[in-house]
Amino acid sequence: MDVAKELLGGNMLAGGRAIRWLDDRDPRGAEVLASVFPHTGRAHIIGITGPPGAGKSTLANAMISQLRSRGRRVGVVAIDPSSPFSGGAILGDRVRMARHTLDADVFIRSIGTRGQAGGLSRSAHDACLILDAMGFDVILVETVGVGQDEIDIVALAHTTVIVGLPGLGDEVQAIKAGLMEVGDVFVINKADREGYEATRQQFELMLHLRAEGRQDSSLHWSPPVLRAVALNDEGIAEIIDATEAHAQFLRDNGEFERLSGQRERAQTLGLMGEALLQLALEKTDPDVLAAVEAREIDPYAAARLLLRSL
Amino acid sequence: MDVAKELLGGNMLAGGRAIRWLDDRDPRGAEVLASVFPHTGRAHIIGITGPPGAGKSTLANAMISQLRSRGRRVGVVAIDPSSPFSGGAILGDRVRMARHTLDADVFIRSIGTRGQAGGLSRSAHDACLILDAMGFDVILVETVGVGQDEIDIVALAHTTVIVGLPGLGDEVQAIKAGLMEVGDVFVINKADREGYEATRQQFELMLHLRAEGRQDSSLHWSPPVLRAVALNDEGIAEIIDATEAHAQFLRDNGEFERLSGQRERAQTLGLMGEALLQLALEKTDPDVLAAVEAREIDPYAAARLLLRSL
Repeated sequence: MDVAKELLGGNMLAGGRAIRWLDDRDPRGAEVLASVFPHTGRAHIIGITGPPGAGKSTLANAMISQLRSRGRRVGVVAIDPSSPFSGGAILGDRVRMARHTLDADVFIRSIGTRGQAGGLSRSAHDACLILDAMGFDVILVETVGVGQDEIDIVALAHTTVIVGLPGLGDEVQAIKAGLMEVGDVFVINKADREGYEATRQQFELMLHLRAEGRQDSSLHWSPPVLRAVALNDEGIAEIIDATEAHAQFLRDNGEFERLSGQRERAQTLGLMGEALLQLALEKTDPDVLAAVEAREIDPYAAARLLLRSL
Repeated sequence: MDVAKELLGGNMLAGGRAIRWLDDRDPRGAEVLASVFPHTGRAHIIGITGPPGAGKSTLANAMISQLRSRGRRVGVVAIDPSSPFSGGAILGDRVRMARHTLDADVFIRSIGTRGQAGGLSRSAHDACLILDAMGFDVILVETVGVGQDEIDIVALAHTTVIVGLPGLGDEVQAIKAGLMEVGDVFVINKADREGYEATRQQFELMLHLRAEGRQDSSLHWSPPVLRAVALNDEGIAEIIDATEAHAQFLRDNGEFERLSGQRERAQTLGLMGEALLQLALEKTDPDVLAAVEAREIDPYAAARLLLRSL
């Protein structure tokens, strides 16, 4: 099977194989990517994130249905921060997406870390490129946690959807911690629960403060705060209206392409960093590392020493 | 002021200054670290993590009180995954620790990322070394999220405390995703809430499965699952009993020193990786990156090309 040609034609088997090769660092993956890369850059990439408990998977599921009803072909990249030891992945949430698995215009891939630093980000990016080349109109990138890795991933999407839930507390703190700045569309899911109005006001206040800190910006996108009960499909059409309006806004300003380019640039630098560290590890004097472990030389001095010897 | 000498004597002002220098990459930081490094390796480093909403800060606060009542001097490193854009940090939770700020044997530092990949981990490590050199017996490292970065940080502690809360759902999923494997002591906080027993059983089951996957291990530490209501100081003595038993277990097996050495080794390699990437960025051909942004050459091919030219 000519994997590159087949996946450009939309063959899911070929797409899945290419993603797995890239994830496994099988050289065939980079080969396929090189030949399909010119066909990428068309898909609208939407990142979905928020604290655990906000119902991100249910929301993603409802968004897929809504996008499908509008005739869009949808790819999903689900980020599972696997155990650094066992390589295990979260499966429970994925099962809820099962109703879409028989739809030929929906393609869902789960990505795990395999333990390398930055590996999550690289794999997610590769999967997006392959889905893009397969011709999917929209790619949803869904994360589980709210760590720096996940923020890095969604920050590189064209449109970032932040999902919160009613109730002031640690969840809002976690959103405040890094997601508020990268969000383009805010959704308060489970909005039929107590505390919705207070949470909405808190979001609006944070967005107001954020807008004040950006007065010099020439671009003006005012992130909406939307109400949803994903379990009942409530508010989903409005979310897709907002993500589509945001994509149009980006295209009108030349930002769509700029963000795509920035993403490829970051991926290139990340790959270089990985390769350099690998090289350094291979050529590093084990005696210096042993001296560090024995607390005879500190990490900063050791790093300087090792770099000089390279 | 001779910062190195002063901090070895326990001067908090000097300690704070050294941590800030290291965080800011002020060369004086590395200088101080080099001279105090031989005095490190004594403190028992305890990582505390778990999903947002589990009450980690309240628990950490109660643990500080308990440790103080046993005469231990306690350092705290609070990890705030700052916004990649504004550099803002979570302050709310920190305020709850205020009751300890007048205690000369408790020292609390908040660490933010400043946006560099891996920066969180490096800064946390540096802060631990300085607190260690200052003579604190126990260092609590508390994280906010459950991302890969946070897992990397707590995985390098001597003892990792995973905090969960009653109720099956995304929280347990998030714990399952990566924390179950690295936990040495499990705490179900807010245990007076509905669903405690079901959550306890789920934790026990996960630990049972984990133990089965490690049958070949010669070391045997059975992680306890403890009940707590941190807000009322319930179950806190048992948690400290468990962390102290774990420290003793590690010392008896030579694991305490091995883990400390491993941590310094990881820090050294991380510093090398940072420096190499910086070097690569400075010497990288901007035309190649521009070609990547224009989708003329794919990231893998570009990274190879750039590495060859270095």
